[in-house]
Amino acid sequence: MAPVGAGLWRTLRAHQVYGANTDVGKTIVSTVLCNAIQNQKQRAAFLKPVSTGALDDADDRHLKRYGAGTLTKCLYQFDEPVSPHIAAKKKSVRDDDLLASIQKTLADWARSDIDFALVETAGGVHSPGPNGNSQADLYRPLRLPIVLVADSRLGGISSSISAYESLLLRGYDIQSVLLFRDEYYQNHEYLRDFFRNKSIPLVPLPAPPTKPLQLDADSRLRDEEAMSSYYQKVSQESEVLRLLEEMSVKNTERIERLEEMASRAHDLIWYPFTQHHGMSAKDITVIDSAHDDYFQTFGSNSSTKPDSELRPTFDGSASWWTQGLGHGNPDLSLSAAYAAGRYGHVMFAGAVHEPALSLADRLLKTLDNPRFTKVFYTDNGSTGMEVAVKMGLRAACDRYGWDASQEKINILGLKGSYHGDTIGVMDCSEPSTYNRKVEWYRGRGHWFDFPLVKMVDGTWKVEIPEELRADLGSDAEFESLNSVFDLKQRLKSDAGQRYKEYIRRTIEDLVQKQGMKFGALILEPVILGAGGMLFCDPLFQRCLTDVVRDHPELFSAENNSPKSTPSWSGLPVIFDEVFTGLYRLGRPTSASFLDVYPDIAVNAKLLTGGLIPLCTTAASQEIFDTFSSPEKSDALLHGHSYTAHAVGCTVAVDSLKTMTEMDVNGSWDGFRADWTSKSTLVASTPDVWSVWSQNLLKDISCADAVESVFAIGTVLSISLRDEQGGGYTSTVAKSLQQKLAVGGDQFNVHSRVLGNVLYLMSSVTSKPDSLQEMERLLRVSLL
Amino acid sequence: MAPVGAGLWRTLRAHQVYGANTDVGKTIVSTVLCNAIQNQKQRAAFLKPVSTGALDDADDRHLKRYGAGTLTKCLYQFDEPVSPHIAAKKKSVRDDDLLASIQKTLADWARSDIDFALVETAGGVHSPGPNGNSQADLYRPLRLPIVLVADSRLGGISSSISAYESLLLRGYDIQSVLLFRDEYYQNHEYLRDFFRNKSIPLVPLPAPPTKPLQLDADSRLRDEEAMSSYYQKVSQESEVLRLLEEMSVKNTERIERLEEMASRAHDLIWYPFTQHHGMSAKDITVIDSAHDDYFQTFGSNSSTKPDSELRPTFDGSASWWTQGLGHGNPDLSLSAAYAAGRYGHVMFAGAVHEPALSLADRLLKTLDNPRFTKVFYTDNGSTGMEVAVKMGLRAACDRYGWDASQEKINILGLKGSYHGDTIGVMDCSEPSTYNRKVEWYRGRGHWFDFPLVKMVDGTWKVEIPEELRADLGSDAEFESLNSVFDLKQRLKSDAGQRYKEYIRRTIEDLVQKQGMKFGALILEPVILGAGGMLFCDPLFQRCLTDVVRDHPELFSAENNSPKSTPSWSGLPVIFDEVFTGLYRLGRPTSASFLDVYPDIAVNAKLLTGGLIPLCTTAASQEIFDTFSSPEKSDALLHGHSYTAHAVGCTVAVDSLKTMTEMDVNGSWDGFRADWTSKSTLVASTPDVWSVWSQNLLKDISCADAVESVFAIGTVLSISLRDEQGGGYTSTVAKSLQQKLAVGGDQFNVHSRVLGNVLYLMSSVTSKPDSLQEMERLLRVSLL
Repeated sequence: MAPVGAGLWRTLRAHQVYGANTDVGKTIVSTVLCNAIQNQKQRAAFLKPVSTGALDDADDRHLKRYGAGTLTKCLYQFDEPVSPHIAAKKKSVRDDDLLASIQKTLADWARSDIDFALVETAGGVHSPGPNGNSQADLYRPLRLPIVLVADSRLGGISSSISAYESLLLRGYDIQSVLLFRDEYYQNHEYLRDFFRNKSIPLVPLPAPPTKPLQLDADSRLRDEEAMSSYYQKVSQESEVLRLLEEMSVKNTERIERLEEMASRAHDLIWYPFTQHHGMSAKDITVIDSAHDDYFQTFGSNSSTKPDSELRPTFDGSASWWTQGLGHGNPDLSLSAAYAAGRYGHVMFAGAVHEPALSLADRLLKTLDNPRFTKVFYTDNGSTGMEVAVKMGLRAACDRYGWDASQEKINILGLKGSYHGDTIGVMDCSEPSTYNRKVEWYRGRGHWFDFPLVKMVDGTWKVEIPEELRADLGSDAEFESLNSVFDLKQRLKSDAGQRYKEYIRRTIEDLVQKQGMKFGALILEPVILGAGGMLFCDPLFQRCLTDVVRDHPELFSAENNSPKSTPSWSGLPVIFDEVFTGLYRLGRPTSASFLDVYPDIAVNAKLLTGGLIPLCTTAASQEIFDTFSSPEKSDALLHGHSYTAHAVGCTVAVDSLKTMTEMDVNGSWDGFRADWTSKSTLVASTPDVWSVWSQNLLKDISCADAVESVFAIGTVLSISLRDEQGGGYTSTVAKSLQQKLAVGGDQFNVHSRVLGNVLYLMSSVTSKPDSLQEMERLLRVSLL
Repeated sequence: MAPVGAGLWRTLRAHQVYGANTDVGKTIVSTVLCNAIQNQKQRAAFLKPVSTGALDDADDRHLKRYGAGTLTKCLYQFDEPVSPHIAAKKKSVRDDDLLASIQKTLADWARSDIDFALVETAGGVHSPGPNGNSQADLYRPLRLPIVLVADSRLGGISSSISAYESLLLRGYDIQSVLLFRDEYYQNHEYLRDFFRNKSIPLVPLPAPPTKPLQLDADSRLRDEEAMSSYYQKVSQESEVLRLLEEMSVKNTERIERLEEMASRAHDLIWYPFTQHHGMSAKDITVIDSAHDDYFQTFGSNSSTKPDSELRPTFDGSASWWTQGLGHGNPDLSLSAAYAAGRYGHVMFAGAVHEPALSLADRLLKTLDNPRFTKVFYTDNGSTGMEVAVKMGLRAACDRYGWDASQEKINILGLKGSYHGDTIGVMDCSEPSTYNRKVEWYRGRGHWFDFPLVKMVDGTWKVEIPEELRADLGSDAEFESLNSVFDLKQRLKSDAGQRYKEYIRRTIEDLVQKQGMKFGALILEPVILGAGGMLFCDPLFQRCLTDVVRDHPELFSAENNSPKSTPSWSGLPVIFDEVFTGLYRLGRPTSASFLDVYPDIAVNAKLLTGGLIPLCTTAASQEIFDTFSSPEKSDALLHGHSYTAHAVGCTVAVDSLKTMTEMDVNGSWDGFRADWTSKSTLVASTPDVWSVWSQNLLKDISCADAVESVFAIGTVLSISLRDEQGGGYTSTVAKSLQQKLAVGGDQFNVHSRVLGNVLYLMSSVTSKPDSLQEMERLLRVSLL
C-alpha cells in the first residue's frame, strides 16, 4: 500500500478534530466552526472517516442539518454506539485504505472550492480505529494540525491535558483548543492558562442547549430550534471568528515558513560533509516531518494543484545509516520521554543508573563475544573509536614495552577504511579525500588493499585487485553469497593459504625492513561504508585477524607466544561495527560473518533504533586491566559530559530488545526465504540474507550503466560505470540519484551517493510493499 | 523547604493510586486491595492527601467503613466536590508541606507494623492539586510506584492510555492497572492486551453494586450490605491476590536490584575518567531517579529504620556541568517526545528541519556576536572543538599560504586548558596528567601561564605566578569582583600595558626565534574548568586576543595588515564556551565578560538544559568562506550521523528560550541583588553575580583549610591548602567531599573534586532554599 502524503494545502485549511474524551462535544464544536466559515461566504467541509452509533444520530447528519451548507462525508458507518474496533469486527477496513481515502477526499476538496475542512475522529485520542489501533497512531501519517476539543466536565482538566500530551508525543501540532464553558468547574479558566503557556489559543464556547429527555416530535422540534439558534449565535462570537482567523494565518504562515526554510538554512547552517560552493537553497530538502520510512518533504510536488504540498519521500540512506525502527516511532518516543522524566541526564562517573546498567548487560548478550566483559559509553561512532584506539594502543605498548611518546605506533587496517571525523581516528585511515586536507591529519598505519565481493552480470565474484593478482591469484566466481561466507571451507582452500601468506609476508616486511611498530588491527567487518560501500572478501578479513593472532612474533621479538583465549595475541583486534553492527547486515554483529571474536568492538547508529546519538565501546577484561594501576594517570581518562545519558540508554535498551525479538520471532523470514531458496544452502554457515531481492540484484547487475552490485541485510549498493575511474569525487551516480528523487506515483526517494556508488538502505521494519516499489523504481531507472 | 526522599521501604509496600479520570472507582479499587491485604493478616493503610466533597462521602470514610480494619488518614479535607485548586483557594496548603506530610506519614507507617499503603490522588492524573499544579507533577518527587485505575466507560480506552502516557513521561513506574469489567464496552479486554505488551498486569474487577437513587435509611442499609458483600467477594478473587503478590514481589525485586546495581556496574561498566584499581562497588553511587537538583540515591541512609531507602542527594557537580533546568523537567521531556514523534532523527546533510533551523537562529541571537553567521552541529564539546580547530587552522593556513602537511601548525592557548577527550583536541592542551599517557597525544602549541583571580581571606585578588612577576608585576587587590571585570579601566592601567607587552614579546620569540607557526588562539573564557577551575584574570585573556588581533605581523611577514571587523586578524580566535557559556556564569556568553567577539565559538552542556548531548560550533562568514571552493575535497568533511538530531535541537530551542526568559524576567534578581548591593557598582560594566552568596565566600575564604575561593554564576570553587602543592592528583579535597556526602538532615551532597579543588555547581533553576542549606553545610564543614 502506498504511503500517504501529510496533509497541507494552500487553498484548503484542513484540520483533524480530536476529543479529550468521548462525548465532549466534538461534533458541536465542528458545527460551530463550519457554521462560522460558511457565514463568512467561505466553503466548509466535514469528514467523518469512521462513525459509530445509529445512522440517525451520525455526526455527519448533524453537520448536514446544522452546518449552514457545509459539505459532509462519512467513509465508514457502523451502527453500534461502541468503539470502532468492536463495531468493525465483521467488516474489513484496512487502516491504509482509510488513510488513503481521507487523503484523497481532502485532496479532492482542495482541488474544488472548499476552504476549510475538519476531519473528525471518534471518541478520545486513543480510541481504537476499526483495526484496533489507536487513532492517534493510525492517523499520524497525515499529521493534520489538530483542533482539540477539551473536556469541560469534572475531571476534564486532567483528561484534556493527557490527551494533549498523547498527541504531542506523536509529533502532532495542536493548533487550537475549544471546550464548553462550565462556570462551576471552570475548566476553561485553568486550561486557558495552561494552553496560553504553550502559545495555543483556547476558546470556551457557551454550553449547547440541553437535550430533551423525551423524543416526541414536539420536543424534537424545540431541540432543533434551540440548536439552530445556538449555532447561529455562537458561530458569530468574536472569539470564534478570531480563532478561525488565527487558524487561517497559521496555515499561511506554515507554508511561508516551509517556503523560506531552505534559504534560511542556506544562510545559517554550515552543513556536514558539504561543499557549499555552488550550492543553492534549492539543493536543500525541506523535511516537515517523518514517519516510518518516509520523510514528508515540502516542494517536491510539481503540479499546480497537488495532492498535498507535502510528499512522502523514502529515506533511502536510512538517515545516514541510523534508522532501525522507523521515524516517529511512538514506543521510542515514550521511552525517551520516560527516561527524561525519571532522570534527565545524571552524572555517570562513579555512579550508576538502571538504563546504563541494563544496556551494558543487554549489549554484551547481543554481541555474544566471550571476550567482552566491559562497556564504555560515548556519544558517537567517532568518539567510540577514539576510545577503542586508546585502549588498543595502550594494551600493545604495555605488553611490548614501547614508549609511545618517543616512537610512532601505527595501526594495521584496510584501504578505504573510515572510522569517524575526529582527528585521532582520521589518523587510522590512509590519506584520502576525506582527510588529506585536514591540517593535523597524519595517517599512522599500514592499509592493505583487498579483494572485493560483488555481483557482476548476475554472478557473485571475488575480485582480486590487479596489483595483488601475483600474490592472491585471480578472480573467483561463487554460486551464491552464502558460499562466499563459507569460511570453514575457504580457509582450507588455496585462496586461504595465499591470503595468509601474503599478509604474513607483508607485515614481516613492514616491521622488519621498514621498522614499523603496530599497536592494533582495526577493521570494519564485511563492508567498509564511508570508503565507498566496499564489500571486502570476508576470507581476507578473517585471514588478517588469524595471521595477526597466530603470529605475535611478527610484532615484537619478545613476549610473543600466542596467548590462549580470551587473551589477545599479536595485536588487539578492534572491530568498528558502527555501521555494520546491530542488524544492519541482518545479524546482531558483523563479526559473526567472519566467525571472529574481536578484543574491542564499537557500536553506534542503530544502537538507539535511529533516534539519538549514543555509542558503546565493548572490551575484553584483559584490555581493561591494562589501565588498572595505583596511578590515577594510568586510567582511561576519557569521558564526555553526557556519558551514558539515560535517555539514550533507555531508548537503546528498547531498540535492542525490539530488534532481537524481530530476529527471533521470524519478522524477516520472508526476506530470508528469498535468499535461501534461490541459493544453495551451505550447512556449515548461518544464512546470509537481504531485504533486497535476489532477482533485483541479478537484473540490475546486468544493466549497461551498472558495473556491479551487492546486497546484504538492509544495504543495497550499486556501483555505476565511470570512465573516469570512480572514487569519492565521481559524479556518475548523480543521474540515477536524480531519477529516484523524482520517484514514482507513490513517493520520491532520497538517496545518497558515494562517488560512483549509489546505495540504498532500509530500516529493519521496512514493509515489503515499500521495498517492492523501491525495486520497481530501480528497474525503471536502470533497465 | 527540604526536598523529600522518594518513597521506598523494605517492610512497607507504598503505592500511589492514580485514576484515568475522575469517578473511575479509585476508592473502590483501593478498598478492594486493602481488604485483600487485611484478609491476609497483613496491615493495610490508606492515605488521602487531599479530599474534596462532603465529609460524609470522603474516601477515607469509605475505607474506614469497608476497609476491614485498614488504617486511614486524610491530610486536607475540602467540602466542595470540585477540583482541589478551587476548593483550596482560601486555605493555604503549600505543595512542599503536602509532600513532606505524605512522606512523613508513610515513613511513620513503615516504622510501625503497616505492610501495604495506598496514597490516593484526587480526580485524574493531571487534576490540579491545592495550588493548581498537576498532581502528576506535584507528587513526582515521591515517585511512588503507581496503581492506575483505568476507565471502563465508553471512551475509557483512550483516557486510560493517555493517563498512562502522562505518568510515564514524568518518569513514574506504573506497576499495575485495575478497572471494572464492562462486558458491553470491553475496555478491559483491549487494555489488558495493551498493558501486557508493556509487561504491566491488568486486573478487571466486577462492577460494584449500583448506588441507590434515594438515600433513605433503608436504601442506605441495603447499599451498605451490597458493598460489604462486594468487597468480601472481590477481595478474595484469585486475580486480585495474585496481583498483590506480584506487587509485593516487585517491591522486593526493586530493592534487590538496587542492592546489586553497584556490584553489577562494577562488573560491567568501564567508567569514564576513572581509575578502577582499588575501586570497589561501594564507591559507586546508585541513582534510582532524579528530580530538580536532587538525585534519589540508594543506600545513603544508615539508620536501620530509615525515612526511606532513597535519599535526596544534591547534584553538586550539576551532573558534570550539564544541568540547567533541573532533572526530570516535564517540559523538556515533552519537547523531546514531540521531536521524537514528529521526526525521530532525520538526515541533515543537504536537508533541513524546523528544530535545527530554529536552533541556529536562536543560538546566533543568544550569542549576539556580529561576526557569526553560521552554525555547525556536532554531538559534544570535544567533537565541536575538533570542528573549531579544523576551521581555525584551515583559515590561517589558507591566509598565510602554509602547507600543513609539511609544517607543524600550533595553537596558542593557556596552561591548564582542556578542550575534550578526542585526540585532536587533546593536542590543543599542554602535556598534563590528562593526556601525557595517551599514545597518540602530541601537544601542538604554546600555552601561556597566567594570573589567577581568587578571593583570599575575604579579599578579591589577582595573583601573578611567581615566574611572571618580573614581567607582569605583583599581585593586586580588588574591592569587588565587578572591579576585576572593569576591563575598560584596567586595559589602560599599567597592568594592561605590562600584560600586552609580555604577550607580544613572547609570541615574537616563539615565532621568530623558535620558528613556530600558529594557526589559532584557543581560550576558555574566564574559567578553565577541567584544568582545575582556574579563574583566569579576564584582563589577561582580553590582552591576549587584543595582541593577536592587533599584531598580525607577529604570525606572518606577509598578508598581515589588521583586518577590519568582521574579518579575523592575526589568528582566528576560538572560544571554547562548552563549560562557561549559556548562563553557566550568569550570562548568555562568557565572551561578554571579556568584551571580545571570537571568530569561532563552541557551545554544549547547558545547550539542552542538561538532557542530551548536542554541540554547536558557530563561525564567522569569513571562516566559512575559507572552505568554499569548486573542489569537494576543500569542504569541511566532518559530520556525525546524528548531526543536528531533531530531539536535541528541539530541547535546545526550549532550553535557550527558557533561560533567556529567566534572564529577562528577573528570575535571578535575588542573587544579583546580593552581589550588587555589597560591591561598589562599576557603571561601565554589566554586573557580575552568583547564586552563591558573597557572605559565604568571605567566610569560607578565611577558613584554615581553605587556600582561596571564588564564585561566579552557578559555580563555586574552593581551593584547599595542600602541602604537596595541589594539582589533579591531589587528594586533599576528599575530606571535604566526604563531609558533604554525609550531608545534613535534609539531603546528602554529591560533589566532584579536581585535585585540591572542590567545586559546586547549581542549575539555573536551583531554589534559594536548597542553596542556603548547601551554604550551611559548607560552613559546618569548613568553619
